[in-house]
Amino acid sequence: MNRVITIGREFGSGGRTIAGMVGKELGIPVYDHELLVRIAQESGFAKEYVEEKGESASLNSLIARSLSGMGGYSPMTAEDYLWQMQRKVILELAQKENCVIVGRCADYILRERADCLRAFIYADREKRARRIVAVYGEAGAEMPEKRLLDKDKRRSAFYSAHTDMTWGDPHNYHICLDSGALGLEQCAQILCGIYRKMEE
Amino acid sequence: MNRVITIGREFGSGGRTIAGMVGKELGIPVYDHELLVRIAQESGFAKEYVEEKGESASLNSLIARSLSGMGGYSPMTAEDYLWQMQRKVILELAQKENCVIVGRCADYILRERADCLRAFIYADREKRARRIVAVYGEAGAEMPEKRLLDKDKRRSAFYSAHTDMTWGDPHNYHICLDSGALGLEQCAQILCGIYRKMEE
Repeated sequence: MNRVITIGREFGSGGRTIAGMVGKELGIPVYDHELLVRIAQESGFAKEYVEEKGESASLNSLIARSLSGMGGYSPMTAEDYLWQMQRKVILELAQKENCVIVGRCADYILRERADCLRAFIYADREKRARRIVAVYGEAGAEMPEKRLLDKDKRRSAFYSAHTDMTWGDPHNYHICLDSGALGLEQCAQILCGIYRKMEE
Repeated sequence: MNRVITIGREFGSGGRTIAGMVGKELGIPVYDHELLVRIAQESGFAKEYVEEKGESASLNSLIARSLSGMGGYSPMTAEDYLWQMQRKVILELAQKENCVIVGRCADYILRERADCLRAFIYADREKRARRIVAVYGEAGAEMPEKRLLDKDKRRSAFYSAHTDMTWGDPHNYHICLDSGALGLEQCAQILCGIYRKMEE
């Protein structure tokens, strides 16, 4: 059976960079941008749409979801369809090969698999704010803290809506790492160490 | 400056055992039961009282605390005094030597220290229930899940009351480890690895 590492992460925590380091060190593919491409192909949606709607809740979708809970007719929305396609692609990837999968509730989708290491990466707000300005450039310099809060809130809402669990609650993961305190390199090394010990 | 590892833990997660392994491997003292003894000496309270009140909220103390927030005269309670003594002992230990400190909000008390590694150990409820029956014997066999819930709830209330933070929220720790999934030995090894890399 394949071994999979899923990496959930707060915006600006460097989770994506850690995923890249882990994949490189272990010699296994990392599904991050490539995951978007595959979900876009599978669903027929534009990549930008998948990026926008595949792990962040929009205000409209939250309202619609809460209204649909009040009874009455609730047709499948584009977002429900996207969720199904995303789930299908992630399950297929995990079936196919050892890999690292970033975000998109992969931890939840693969929660029944004994060979899946579920990690969550976070950092304090100040360090994340500095990081998004450094990585995403001056465009993000305007109120980076507000941007962080907004992104986290939408990812969290998306996660809760689809999983009935709380985003960032340690119990959903095997390990949670503060990348701001431990450093990206050390986080990657810890994950590689656990992966190597997982039974093949 | 000394290096300190604080280990917060859910009841039954094996956090105390991990602390022992870490201390042994690194050759540094572990303050767990010994911490109780010192706080008892410092405060004049019986060890049993310190054990009972030093990290778990009682219903009475929660009611008193919430009432005192409503204004009026609020004299220092025995529990406030215990908290102050506990804080003093923990600060002194961290000042004195490299060590591991288990529970008792040590992570919060030492939060400003750059040389403190704050860890949280947890596991799913089923694994913890099995563990408390195995470790604490047949006396715990009766409704172990209820016992877990009760203990966690009281530790959580105590932590929130004294720190204004949420017990088990990853942001209060540098690393959170699921001992049920990773195993006690591996958790200990990961903590030792980080400790060794901390600057002296």
